[in-house]
Amino acid sequence: MTEQQKPTLSVTKPHKAPRYRDHRNAGPKRRTLQVLKRPERDVHEDFMQQDSLKVTHLGGLGEIGRNMQVLEYKEDIMLIDAGFGFPEDDQPGIDYNIPNVTYLDDKKDRIRGLVITHGHYDHIGALPYILTKIGNPPIYCSRLTWGIIMKRHQEFPHLPAMDITIVQDRDVIQLGAQFRVEFVHVNHNIPEDLALHITTPVATVFHTADFKFDPQPLNEKPTDIEYLKKLGDQGVTLLLSDSTGAERPGSSVSESAIYENLEKIFQQSKGRIITATFSSLINRIQQLIQLSEQYGRKVAIDGYSMKSNVEILKELNQLRIKNGTQIAIEQVDDFPENQITVIGTGAQGEERAVMMRIASGEHRSVKLKDSDTIIFSSSVVQGNERTVQRMRDLLYRMGATVYHYQMMDIHTGGHALQEDLKRMILYMRPRFFLPNHGYYSMMVTHAKLAQEVGIPKEDCIIPDNGNIIHVTQDAWWYDKKSASVDNIMVDGLGVGDVGSVVIRDRQVLAEDGMFVIVTLIDSKTGKVRGSPDIISRGFVYLKENKELLTLVRKRVHATVAKAGTRPINWSDLKDVIREDIGLFLFQKTQRRPMILPVVIEV
Amino acid sequence: MTEQQKPTLSVTKPHKAPRYRDHRNAGPKRRTLQVLKRPERDVHEDFMQQDSLKVTHLGGLGEIGRNMQVLEYKEDIMLIDAGFGFPEDDQPGIDYNIPNVTYLDDKKDRIRGLVITHGHYDHIGALPYILTKIGNPPIYCSRLTWGIIMKRHQEFPHLPAMDITIVQDRDVIQLGAQFRVEFVHVNHNIPEDLALHITTPVATVFHTADFKFDPQPLNEKPTDIEYLKKLGDQGVTLLLSDSTGAERPGSSVSESAIYENLEKIFQQSKGRIITATFSSLINRIQQLIQLSEQYGRKVAIDGYSMKSNVEILKELNQLRIKNGTQIAIEQVDDFPENQITVIGTGAQGEERAVMMRIASGEHRSVKLKDSDTIIFSSSVVQGNERTVQRMRDLLYRMGATVYHYQMMDIHTGGHALQEDLKRMILYMRPRFFLPNHGYYSMMVTHAKLAQEVGIPKEDCIIPDNGNIIHVTQDAWWYDKKSASVDNIMVDGLGVGDVGSVVIRDRQVLAEDGMFVIVTLIDSKTGKVRGSPDIISRGFVYLKENKELLTLVRKRVHATVAKAGTRPINWSDLKDVIREDIGLFLFQKTQRRPMILPVVIEV
Repeated sequence: MTEQQKPTLSVTKPHKAPRYRDHRNAGPKRRTLQVLKRPERDVHEDFMQQDSLKVTHLGGLGEIGRNMQVLEYKEDIMLIDAGFGFPEDDQPGIDYNIPNVTYLDDKKDRIRGLVITHGHYDHIGALPYILTKIGNPPIYCSRLTWGIIMKRHQEFPHLPAMDITIVQDRDVIQLGAQFRVEFVHVNHNIPEDLALHITTPVATVFHTADFKFDPQPLNEKPTDIEYLKKLGDQGVTLLLSDSTGAERPGSSVSESAIYENLEKIFQQSKGRIITATFSSLINRIQQLIQLSEQYGRKVAIDGYSMKSNVEILKELNQLRIKNGTQIAIEQVDDFPENQITVIGTGAQGEERAVMMRIASGEHRSVKLKDSDTIIFSSSVVQGNERTVQRMRDLLYRMGATVYHYQMMDIHTGGHALQEDLKRMILYMRPRFFLPNHGYYSMMVTHAKLAQEVGIPKEDCIIPDNGNIIHVTQDAWWYDKKSASVDNIMVDGLGVGDVGSVVIRDRQVLAEDGMFVIVTLIDSKTGKVRGSPDIISRGFVYLKENKELLTLVRKRVHATVAKAGTRPINWSDLKDVIREDIGLFLFQKTQRRPMILPVVIEV
Repeated sequence: MTEQQKPTLSVTKPHKAPRYRDHRNAGPKRRTLQVLKRPERDVHEDFMQQDSLKVTHLGGLGEIGRNMQVLEYKEDIMLIDAGFGFPEDDQPGIDYNIPNVTYLDDKKDRIRGLVITHGHYDHIGALPYILTKIGNPPIYCSRLTWGIIMKRHQEFPHLPAMDITIVQDRDVIQLGAQFRVEFVHVNHNIPEDLALHITTPVATVFHTADFKFDPQPLNEKPTDIEYLKKLGDQGVTLLLSDSTGAERPGSSVSESAIYENLEKIFQQSKGRIITATFSSLINRIQQLIQLSEQYGRKVAIDGYSMKSNVEILKELNQLRIKNGTQIAIEQVDDFPENQITVIGTGAQGEERAVMMRIASGEHRSVKLKDSDTIIFSSSVVQGNERTVQRMRDLLYRMGATVYHYQMMDIHTGGHALQEDLKRMILYMRPRFFLPNHGYYSMMVTHAKLAQEVGIPKEDCIIPDNGNIIHVTQDAWWYDKKSASVDNIMVDGLGVGDVGSVVIRDRQVLAEDGMFVIVTLIDSKTGKVRGSPDIISRGFVYLKENKELLTLVRKRVHATVAKAGTRPINWSDLKDVIREDIGLFLFQKTQRRPMILPVVIEV
């Protein structure tokens, strides 16, 4: 502690001040995937002369959501799913990403049908946006899927009526001359999920849909494993299997186990039970209703999408709920606390959803009490972690008792985990394996699982969206061409009108705001008339920075005077102002607002 | 499948088109915590007459980072830590959040010293921004902490020199007349972390600092448990303990176990090993160097903060590295692949950090190969999950072998988990317990752990930042006043000049961009002169939407004509244009860009 004890530290490097760069030279911040050069596979020329089945993903590979596949054989085309994906965190203001269907533009008349595996939005959500672009083909799906699609269709009154055929487990349809499609019931976290067994003259495809194995599912029968084995015995050329759970070891917890854990909470709770889950988690909603009835609680359903889905289920007679169980959310205070369950939206911390309104004290009917028990019966979607933490914190701070899936098994995912994925591969024993759906880390890990159970590495196909894969009984190879799969963004009513330039501008505006300088130039003198108008937002609070603005105005005067030998080149003058003021503001603040000079000759 | 099978679905509700709202009426999107009315505690008046120790958090409660505490007794004040916090996802463009020190404005001359527990930025990062505001008091910290603080100080050449005294385990200092502070060595993931044993005439405080128990730490001795027990035996009035790990069951994995797992990867890897970790994870860096030497690999350190920290360690003689082990990053290709380890920044997917540049093919010296082994030896910070996934995907897609902490124990956190937190409470057996540092969910859970080991619920204090807590031997209570703790944001050179208005504007700009309309009004006729200038960014791509712009210009003409009875009220006219064009654009696009009308009389 004496002076002698103090060591010295050399100034190793003088600190460099950050440099100023003009935004306009910067690309979008997002790292896009470089297109991989696909090596030509060592496939014998003879094979490549044969007729082949072509499989192309328009979305869903290297990402979650946006699922859509194209199968082509000779003159016939069938499509599988038409989902949207939620925006990444570097896509501000964007509502969804949807598959690019321009590959089908000149093939519309060959599309024999669109098959939808189940009613989740990552499989149906893009439908309204692409329906007419793919020529409004016949659609095939289960009854519940039909209900969800129809409900959403009402939001797009300008669209034509759809031609939907309802199918069920073991139904068989013929699409064109070449595709025979058999629907096979599998379990997921929404009922009536259908895997596809597709037969063509040259290859048999099994498409698992999103699936998990659940020996004790809720409200429906388990997958018929024996039937899967039988299909495998008949020979499968290509297996497309759901990769979403491929990075997680083990098998997924059964819905029955979830029920038991939820029941423990119902047994202990002395006050109201307020639950948040996905409105698409139909099976979980059913469980919560059943438990509430068992424990003498009324159920209030709240949140637009939740109410909407419950209505669809009731209309289709697919919800088990007793008369008198359901009450309106406004009635929650009419019953004792221990007779109330609220099932609401907002498990992801969505701003206007039920749970966030309750947590922040803005819900009209439900005011939080410390006797309340909160159940988050859903996982947290990647990217929502901080918002969910913020919401949980509001609840903890108010003294409510909170249960979430990291504390106990009160949620199970809808996707098969590693052991079950291996089982699926073993049942099918395909000639070729394509890990479907998911990030590359999931796809690559899924391919490794396939290799563990005997699929040779060279028979595992890990394509990108847009890669056209040829498959025959004996070989697979990449087509030399690729389908164009540039991402299409939906923003409000606009589909595809927001591109990388607009996104980059939004990123820049979010970072440091903008700074408009309106300069009037006298056409006679070439000098600035009056004081330039400055409009700035998101940069600094102008009222508190008047001095800075005065300096900027002075600089504009000086810049124009310097540049102002007539005739004035407007474009050059704008550039000079942009650069000079940009640099000046950067030196003063180390921020780089978007500088937008307006020069008007008067 | 026949027509009869098709059920009907009633149009349950006509879809309502979204309504247009002007941004200016909307508050910031962020849900801020409502200030809780603190109930007056049932403390006997006699107690409240006594002298008490006052404890106030200026940051660090209900959040991660921004740690700073104020201890007051009579005329003396001591401060603990001065950290920053990283911005939330709804704070675009912000660099850090720092503690608000206005509470100390009129108390500067009573500050006897600032004690810093360890060299992590959530404990030292705010120092340059508050140093002069708190009157540049004497600072006390360990030698390594000193080195890190001094290094950073070089980046702020305008600041005065600091008066830092270096202390170590068991050193005792006296701050003013009232505070006796003993420093006690504890383990964390940076060396020389010091807990504080603070004695005042009225209460004894034990402040754990960030800590974990590690029986086999790296490069330093384990915490002296017997000494902790001894301090506990002497009697502790108030325990402030690190809550960061309070939601995780069990005990943390020892650094030695991490070493063994990392060693397995070193044994298996036939190509280069490229690792990413936090530059602040000094102990991990040491492990990777040691393993590289053991397996005959040269080490290239890359990334500004990583190189900087390694330099500090070397200067302070605190890094064990043999001569000849370290090579420059440009030399990686000069050695066989199996003799290379790269230790770089970027485990969180930071845009310009080493790992992202390698993943995206932009690193100058390291081009990814499929023989490379990538090790992420760090956890993923909340909020970075998607960026990290994107980076991992780039690596997987290129064929590299990737290891991360979700796959095996190659990272352990620096914070005690539930069982060890209970041990700490049992060693100290405090009269009162305050769960320090972390989100409310962590603090509340930590308080429950305390109750499990015998601290009565009413003796657990869960305050907000700014609450002033009085502590005596026998009682604690909230002061009726609170310290002002409005968050201070650092953005570039600006400290506190970005407030909620600027943030809200950035959010709006990010969402839908902006739309400036410059209208010249002829002072004689009161009519629009020429065609209004439109500047828009982040809304739609203007070149492809000329028709829309033409319509907007027409509307501006019409609006001005309608409103234009002279004398013109400029402010009203702007409002009319803003509302009319805002509504028009919303109807056309369902987007709400920020509309900024400029009206100029010429």
